[in-house]
Amino acid sequence: MDEQEKIRIEQAKRFFDADEYVKLSGIEIVGLTEKSAVVSAKIDKKHLNANGFVQGGMLYTLADFAFAVLANFLHPITVTQCGHINYIRAANATCLTATATETARAGHNTLSEVVITDENETIVCVCNFNGFIKEIKK
Amino acid sequence: MDEQEKIRIEQAKRFFDADEYVKLSGIEIVGLTEKSAVVSAKIDKKHLNANGFVQGGMLYTLADFAFAVLANFLHPITVTQCGHINYIRAANATCLTATATETARAGHNTLSEVVITDENETIVCVCNFNGFIKEIKK
Amino acid sequence: MDEQEKIRIEQAKRFFDADEYVKLSGIEIVGLTEKSAVVSAKIDKKHLNANGFVQGGMLYTLADFAFAVLANFLHPITVTQCGHINYIRAANATCLTATATETARAGHNTLSEVVITDENETIVCVCNFNGFIKEIKK
Amino acid sequence: MDEQEKIRIEQAKRFFDADEYVKLSGIEIVGLTEKSAVVSAKIDKKHLNANGFVQGGMLYTLADFAFAVLANFLHPITVTQCGHINYIRAANATCLTATATETARAGHNTLSEVVITDENETIVCVCNFNGFIKEIKK
Repeated sequence: MDEQEKIRIEQAKRFFDADEYVKLSGIEIVGLTEKSAVVSAKIDKKHLNANGFVQGGMLYTLADFAFAVLANFLHPITVTQCGHINYIRAANATCLTATATETARAGHNTLSEVVITDENETIVCVCNFNGFIKEIKK
Repeated sequence: MDEQEKIRIEQAKRFFDADEYVKLSGIEIVGLTEKSAVVSAKIDKKHLNANGFVQGGMLYTLADFAFAVLANFLHPITVTQCGHINYIRAANATCLTATATETARAGHNTLSEVVITDENETIVCVCNFNGFIKEIKK
Repeated sequence: MDEQEKIRIEQAKRFFDADEYVKLSGIEIVGLTEKSAVVSAKIDKKHLNANGFVQGGMLYTLADFAFAVLANFLHPITVTQCGHINYIRAANATCLTATATETARAGHNTLSEVVITDENETIVCVCNFNGFIKEIKK
Repeated sequence: MDEQEKIRIEQAKRFFDADEYVKLSGIEIVGLTEKSAVVSAKIDKKHLNANGFVQGGMLYTLADFAFAVLANFLHPITVTQCGHINYIRAANATCLTATATETARAGHNTLSEVVITDENETIVCVCNFNGFIKEIKK
């Protein structure tokens, strides 16, 4: 990781320090480039559902936060219009990482794909977010 | 609420008592009939995002849990295949309620709509879940 | 059907007469109230996929058109931002009907659910559309 | 394009020759590898909506067919469970191409992203499909 990325992450951390639900969920920003944002969480008991797997809402929150970090960096201020999550396998993981990548941008619209992987880099979920950019950079 | 619904809610609470992320998120089961499941959360600081509104992941978790309670009651065991959330307005609420209603069922597939409302019954989100029913009742 | 609805349908038909793909697909507007738009198609060979069922794109086109008719009536001009379709069973039908109902509206956003049924009123698909209203009525 | 890909395309064309709605829509298979399926359509008047842009249902049909060709090649027999389309800009195009790529596969589930571009390689739509693989190869 180069110095610029470290600075970007620090700035994002300062902004998102006020995100209480992300803090409650134990999610950290671990990467931020022009192309992608990466967030991760060490999984412990508090993240589990009644069957002992990572809860679906926790998975979505992880993905949503990766999108928020990316969109906030690329196009402040962006409002999420819709989010879509596909669960591909049950998450029995010690660490989960969500990587958001912008797939397209035009006018006020930004689309990102977010892939959630476990500590073995096995894909657990694939998500998509559609954001509305409130102020477009000229 | 009749006696039957009270019993159903108690059973669901016992099963979902092991859902740690729901507990962390302060979500309670408040209604369960043959047609719909209702869950709610009193909103406090821990649910907020960096802009002071209810965090998108919390909204999704609420909706997902309403679907889980309904699907687990109607068709145990159901696995969520995908979830979709539309954010219609920023949630500046003291209490949020998610109501899941099954829209269609055929073979191994169950679809539900979940509507999230605030304490004024204003709609905040509309969500859709697609579940795969592992064992079909004969 | 009352006189007002007949007039609304005629106006919508005039506007959508220029929709060539809908014409190609044999879809007709059959109902339009303040609450819902209904469109339908008699199914013949041209609508089928390689397995002899109604093609997934035809099902989506039917649903999308029901949403377009409703949104164009309630909030001209509305642009579809995203559409989501859940296939609940294979469509082996002689006639398909799509009914669009607005589930929520706030600011520039409108959400609708569209249910597709066959000639026996069996649900085939449940869809959701998220539209951006370009000009808000004051 | 190598010989193997030509053979794969010919086989896919033979199978999908029975897809009448795809034929009606003027969509052709133009690429098929282990990683992606590509289909395209020359746009003419029959594809347009009432505003003179490519109709939303046509865009979805193009994407859905790209997914069908890929899934049918990688995992016959796959049933589409849900499709999701994000419209990023109005399509004012002479030719549209949809490229389907599998993003994840596990057990009976396959997920693909489909990107639709115009003749200038500008992205018009980003779509996601979730398929259920009926028979898993051992």
